[in-house]
Amino acid sequence: MNNIAFPDKEQILLAAGRIVSMVHHTPVITSATFDTMWQTSLFFKCENFQKAGAFKSRGAINAVFSLSDEQAQHGVCTHSSGNHAQALARAAKLRGIVCYIVMPKNVPLVKVAAVEGYGGIITFCEPTSEAREKTLSTVKAKTGATEIHPYDNLQVIAGQATAALELLYEIPEIDIVLVPVGGGGLLSGTALSAYWFSEKTKVIACEPDGADDARKSFVSGKIIPCINPQTIADGLLTSLGKLTFPIIQNYVSDIVTVEDKSIKKAMKLIYERMKIVVEPSAAVPLAAILENKIVSRGRKVGIILSGGNVDTNKLTELLQ
Amino acid sequence: MNNIAFPDKEQILLAAGRIVSMVHHTPVITSATFDTMWQTSLFFKCENFQKAGAFKSRGAINAVFSLSDEQAQHGVCTHSSGNHAQALARAAKLRGIVCYIVMPKNVPLVKVAAVEGYGGIITFCEPTSEAREKTLSTVKAKTGATEIHPYDNLQVIAGQATAALELLYEIPEIDIVLVPVGGGGLLSGTALSAYWFSEKTKVIACEPDGADDARKSFVSGKIIPCINPQTIADGLLTSLGKLTFPIIQNYVSDIVTVEDKSIKKAMKLIYERMKIVVEPSAAVPLAAILENKIVSRGRKVGIILSGGNVDTNKLTELLQ
Repeated sequence: MNNIAFPDKEQILLAAGRIVSMVHHTPVITSATFDTMWQTSLFFKCENFQKAGAFKSRGAINAVFSLSDEQAQHGVCTHSSGNHAQALARAAKLRGIVCYIVMPKNVPLVKVAAVEGYGGIITFCEPTSEAREKTLSTVKAKTGATEIHPYDNLQVIAGQATAALELLYEIPEIDIVLVPVGGGGLLSGTALSAYWFSEKTKVIACEPDGADDARKSFVSGKIIPCINPQTIADGLLTSLGKLTFPIIQNYVSDIVTVEDKSIKKAMKLIYERMKIVVEPSAAVPLAAILENKIVSRGRKVGIILSGGNVDTNKLTELLQ
Repeated sequence: MNNIAFPDKEQILLAAGRIVSMVHHTPVITSATFDTMWQTSLFFKCENFQKAGAFKSRGAINAVFSLSDEQAQHGVCTHSSGNHAQALARAAKLRGIVCYIVMPKNVPLVKVAAVEGYGGIITFCEPTSEAREKTLSTVKAKTGATEIHPYDNLQVIAGQATAALELLYEIPEIDIVLVPVGGGGLLSGTALSAYWFSEKTKVIACEPDGADDARKSFVSGKIIPCINPQTIADGLLTSLGKLTFPIIQNYVSDIVTVEDKSIKKAMKLIYERMKIVVEPSAAVPLAAILENKIVSRGRKVGIILSGGNVDTNKLTELLQ
């Protein structure tokens, strides 16, 4: 363990209080079909119904509303082409401050429109991590905006922790919570909530095997970057961070990986049986159950459905 | 009005009591985005989350569990290639009786599998209405099974009425309920519930203009059959029935029609904003709002999302 003070009980409860009027308390739903099929009890925490379509709203709101007026006055900034960009733009709009988003210039138009819909100001860059970092530095230098990292930020982690807090408060008898892992913001938050608010709940991360850097990092004890990931789970392409990794090392029980074809199969089951829209990343934990990577028989299993922002033009392909 | 005794208050409440342990009390959900977009308050009754994926479970259960033991002993039968087939097979299974379904032989395999999954016995026929009727007569004669018509059956109508009953009980201040219309089972049931259980709620039916037989019937005062319908709303291809038509004439305020391209647009909005899976027929009422066929500004509008059984292989095409 290092000497960083990770979010404790009070900080997670404070986050829950801070964001409560600006995010949805999302429902927990069950499926009799699935429970019969696998002789288990699954509890799906529906962050696909969250504001801006993903759990990211929790961390973004908590981070933006934790800033002092002085910090906030020059706005916030980040680089993201995904759900964090929308969530941060919405959070900034709610606080009435400016939000600068750095995005690769090849990002789908629908994502540009979503950020602009919340009033975010976009700076496009070349689609490389160097260009992204450099452009963000320029934006920061020019505007004085505070960077809100998509996951490697303690207030973001405390915000993401509130999803599992709600889940464990509603269903305290949960044995395991399954969480997809990309940069580790949701995973580390979930692990902290399970540690602080449950005596028995274990947290297991689920990852596409075409982007298995978190598992490799977990096993080797040092951050292995995610290089050239190949998966349909487009929300899970990032590497673990300096803050998220030690939390994961200490509070996560295991990380399992799944094939893309199982992710598709799980996604299709969720659409056909549960009748809800999820993005591929959100289907990764159910894929782990399909692949028998999780001992779920007879146990109560929480699954965080991380988001529902999927390109409808790709649905037929994704649900094959 | 003719001299048939349509389901009254007591019969609808009786149906609600009869089915309560075998169907979902589905949630009513709202969308801040939609309400802001159209300056209205929309309340979506989510029958897409209903057992077997559609409101049809309500009517089928009520009809099957209204039979005497003597009537029930030889089973039930119907012709349907859609949601009623699954719902009836499930209802029969719950009662422990046999269910015979007549289906056109060109029906998609997924629908065959769904009925067989509930233990339904399928007889295939040529895809014409004559062949369907004739095959059903043969099945009836051979088995002694009781026919449960998909909509022209008073117990089915009373069962479908329970969706609006729940909606109006939860949100009594609703001004208008919008309902898709095919054979008129859901529509006539909704109209009766509004009549019996609300002092002010009007019911307006919404229909694809490529299958506008209900509107034509409503305007002309006689049943105009639905011939060669052309619409993506594949649950709305049937004609009104001898029982549903007079109820609709007496208790429905209006029938409006919408274009298929609006149905697609509405469906896409539901997927992208509400993150739930609906079939095209369920999107028809929202399409009527998109086309400004309904005066919804400043009013409280209930919408019955009739079902969520959609072929995932067609989703990209449907959501374009």
